[in-house]
Amino acid sequence: MENPKDQKLYEKVAGQILTQVQQGVLPLGKKVPSIRVFSRQLGVSLSTVIHAYQILENQNVLKSRPQSGYYVNSDAPLSDREPKKIKIAPNFSKIPVKKIDKEVPHVIGAFGDPENVILSLSYPALEVLPFNALKKALMSGYERQGMMGLHYAFPPGNEALRTQLARHYLECGLSMSPDDFYLTNGALEGLFLCLNAVTEPGDTIAVESPIFAGILMSIQSSRLKAVEIPLDPRQGMDIDVLKKVMKRQKIKAVVSIPNFNNPMSCLMPDANKKHLVNLLGEKNIPLIENDIYGDMYLGETRPKPAKIYDSTGNVMLYSSFSKCLSGGLRVGWVAAGKHQSKVIGYKFMLNVGSNPATEDGLAKFMEEGRYKRHLRKLRKFLAEQLPHFTQAMSKYFPEGTKASLPAGGTNIWVEFPQKLDSSRLHQEAWSKKIILWAGPLFSLSPKSKCCSILQFGHRWSEKIDWAMKTVGDMAKKQISEK
Amino acid sequence: MENPKDQKLYEKVAGQILTQVQQGVLPLGKKVPSIRVFSRQLGVSLSTVIHAYQILENQNVLKSRPQSGYYVNSDAPLSDREPKKIKIAPNFSKIPVKKIDKEVPHVIGAFGDPENVILSLSYPALEVLPFNALKKALMSGYERQGMMGLHYAFPPGNEALRTQLARHYLECGLSMSPDDFYLTNGALEGLFLCLNAVTEPGDTIAVESPIFAGILMSIQSSRLKAVEIPLDPRQGMDIDVLKKVMKRQKIKAVVSIPNFNNPMSCLMPDANKKHLVNLLGEKNIPLIENDIYGDMYLGETRPKPAKIYDSTGNVMLYSSFSKCLSGGLRVGWVAAGKHQSKVIGYKFMLNVGSNPATEDGLAKFMEEGRYKRHLRKLRKFLAEQLPHFTQAMSKYFPEGTKASLPAGGTNIWVEFPQKLDSSRLHQEAWSKKIILWAGPLFSLSPKSKCCSILQFGHRWSEKIDWAMKTVGDMAKKQISEK
Repeated sequence: MENPKDQKLYEKVAGQILTQVQQGVLPLGKKVPSIRVFSRQLGVSLSTVIHAYQILENQNVLKSRPQSGYYVNSDAPLSDREPKKIKIAPNFSKIPVKKIDKEVPHVIGAFGDPENVILSLSYPALEVLPFNALKKALMSGYERQGMMGLHYAFPPGNEALRTQLARHYLECGLSMSPDDFYLTNGALEGLFLCLNAVTEPGDTIAVESPIFAGILMSIQSSRLKAVEIPLDPRQGMDIDVLKKVMKRQKIKAVVSIPNFNNPMSCLMPDANKKHLVNLLGEKNIPLIENDIYGDMYLGETRPKPAKIYDSTGNVMLYSSFSKCLSGGLRVGWVAAGKHQSKVIGYKFMLNVGSNPATEDGLAKFMEEGRYKRHLRKLRKFLAEQLPHFTQAMSKYFPEGTKASLPAGGTNIWVEFPQKLDSSRLHQEAWSKKIILWAGPLFSLSPKSKCCSILQFGHRWSEKIDWAMKTVGDMAKKQISEK
Repeated sequence: MENPKDQKLYEKVAGQILTQVQQGVLPLGKKVPSIRVFSRQLGVSLSTVIHAYQILENQNVLKSRPQSGYYVNSDAPLSDREPKKIKIAPNFSKIPVKKIDKEVPHVIGAFGDPENVILSLSYPALEVLPFNALKKALMSGYERQGMMGLHYAFPPGNEALRTQLARHYLECGLSMSPDDFYLTNGALEGLFLCLNAVTEPGDTIAVESPIFAGILMSIQSSRLKAVEIPLDPRQGMDIDVLKKVMKRQKIKAVVSIPNFNNPMSCLMPDANKKHLVNLLGEKNIPLIENDIYGDMYLGETRPKPAKIYDSTGNVMLYSSFSKCLSGGLRVGWVAAGKHQSKVIGYKFMLNVGSNPATEDGLAKFMEEGRYKRHLRKLRKFLAEQLPHFTQAMSKYFPEGTKASLPAGGTNIWVEFPQKLDSSRLHQEAWSKKIILWAGPLFSLSPKSKCCSILQFGHRWSEKIDWAMKTVGDMAKKQISEK
């Protein structure tokens, strides 16, 4: 914001609020402080704040709700700090097998070392977990199941948990029966099952880009070809590009994370979800929908899964507890509509079944309302951490760095100035025990070479502050050398 | 045995003992009752029993050990009740995808219904499990791991359990380091990882036949072709046939269960294991070895895994706790030698990792010596159940039925007279809530069409007796109709 001398006080205040929105201090969709509180905080009159709020409402940054106050508009127009969608030539892309085979075990090994500062990997901050309550529920799984808890879990798997999942989704308007779900060892396995149920090796699928490295790896291990469809930070997967691609070549399935894509954390508008579901339904091309971040919204309401618009059983929803509760428990699910029986067959062929006692323990945890309570706590925690990360980026990262503004999830897609080589940056950071995912693991576009993934789901600390500053200094140094 | 009038008493006693060996009442490798006990049981003099034992020793049925007594020779010559190896034309065989896709979810669903009598599926009898001790150990996994028990398990996975596995294998002479193991969600997943680490879709592998349906399914889901190598009930996989096949076509890997193959339960002699390992080592063709039944020996000693003869890292061992302890916990392992890093990469791509708290709980269970104690109890239990099943087969099954004589494991391969259609038999049995695996799911040979798999690992009961009689009556009726 400019700050000319003739600027009015209320304009100045509006500018300050806008900056806070742009930096993520006031997250998208969240309520802003009341007029009274803000006037006290800024030391200005009530009428100045009212005036500032009105200006921002006219600019579509805030919106007022009767008897509730002002909220940051989820569609608030942001500065040029927001990254544009990556330009991708929609061609066949073969995932570079060799690189992933060597690089990924290396990186995931580093994620597991407690001495390292993990700036990228998305998992629930351990200190927010209701460890004792969860442990108690998990133990009760063995009690409730008795001997049968040690027996193979045969399809359709633990009914108590499937019932809870059906209830959970009903709360965001998605009506499913317990029998619509099949339990898996985490979400990635769910994707693998979905892919293998509807494709053959050598087939081509479309996938939004950038996207979680694990999804690209799963595509690789299923020996599929992928076409990357660019992701718009506000609109989600670019459906127009997808349409063009579908006209040019046979696409066997489409993979998307409509709710808080990893790594962009953008939210696809409901109208676009509906459009995508209808488009693919007409052409009988399965939509494989990842909903793993759906419960981690920073706005007011749980966004709808795209599956809500599915009338033909064409959407294959998959998710897990790994981002919200525990990656270690390895409990996920697939609701693959008309492809479900194939998914179940593949699951048995792959590893027979999942752990019934763990599943029953999680069911107990949900039955007691503890999961819902935990999610509320987790969302509050995430909303508190995000501003620290966005402010640190402003403070430490090189001029011209852009970053996605998460509406949920835990990830931030960072675009350093194009000169920067993020692989080199990450190697240098690694030497200081700071571990990041490099952009090129999340996209095959050359533009991703200057990109990194940050995750804001851990409690801000001096150590993280140091790591962010160190990465920023390294990035600045690298740019100045060129 | 004939019983002419001029037969000597000691010959008659020798004949009775031979019958007991043939019927599995005296299992292969097991100690027979002492001379004193037997003379009392049969009401004959000590010298008669001594004489009978000497005859059987000359016939190679028994062998004496100084200061220990008489044992059933593991190579005891048995009657013509023992099935011969199935003749298989070693051709490319494509696993019938359609059948497995539909049939398997159907069958496994039935296995999970507690109202059904399960005569085939191999899993530990729940009543033999040390439920409370195991539950306690599993709960301690959460205690010992604390918060980290909820976190993703990164490679190389829970160290305590890998250490215990290394110790466990050392007891049968296989020297491995904890880092040689990688933990999986059960054995079938281990096979999937091994296959995918060393093959590409469309490749051909060799597999002994008959073999567990799950292995054929895993081959199918990996889009491989399989050549079946006949299994000799005494020699294991026929290495001469394998050699011929390898001369004719490119084989990318060989899958075998040297210790108590499922469903034959035969034990490959050590010399053959060594021969197989050397042969494949020279040609750099990985041997994928399933050792899941190795601890369930009915003889005196734990048989050696073939991997013991591996000097080049060419043997990929995989196994799990599913048959000895719990199928529900879904904990298995892979020790894939020089292919291990590829296995680890695929595991991450498939489903990230396994449950660290469960793994740690199992480590505790092993550390306390409880697993070893349980295995002793389990082996005793298995040796007690086997005779009931072999006697019931003699009593109820049609004349001319042959059955493998297990040296360990829990499975019996039954060959009904060739007229019989086992698929029809199984459908009829199913209508009475008796569930069996049909031979054709375990082999593609036409000869398998009259075969079934029985498992003797559950406590003999009136219900099982009824089920065996019912199946026998159905088989007799079907044969008499033709």
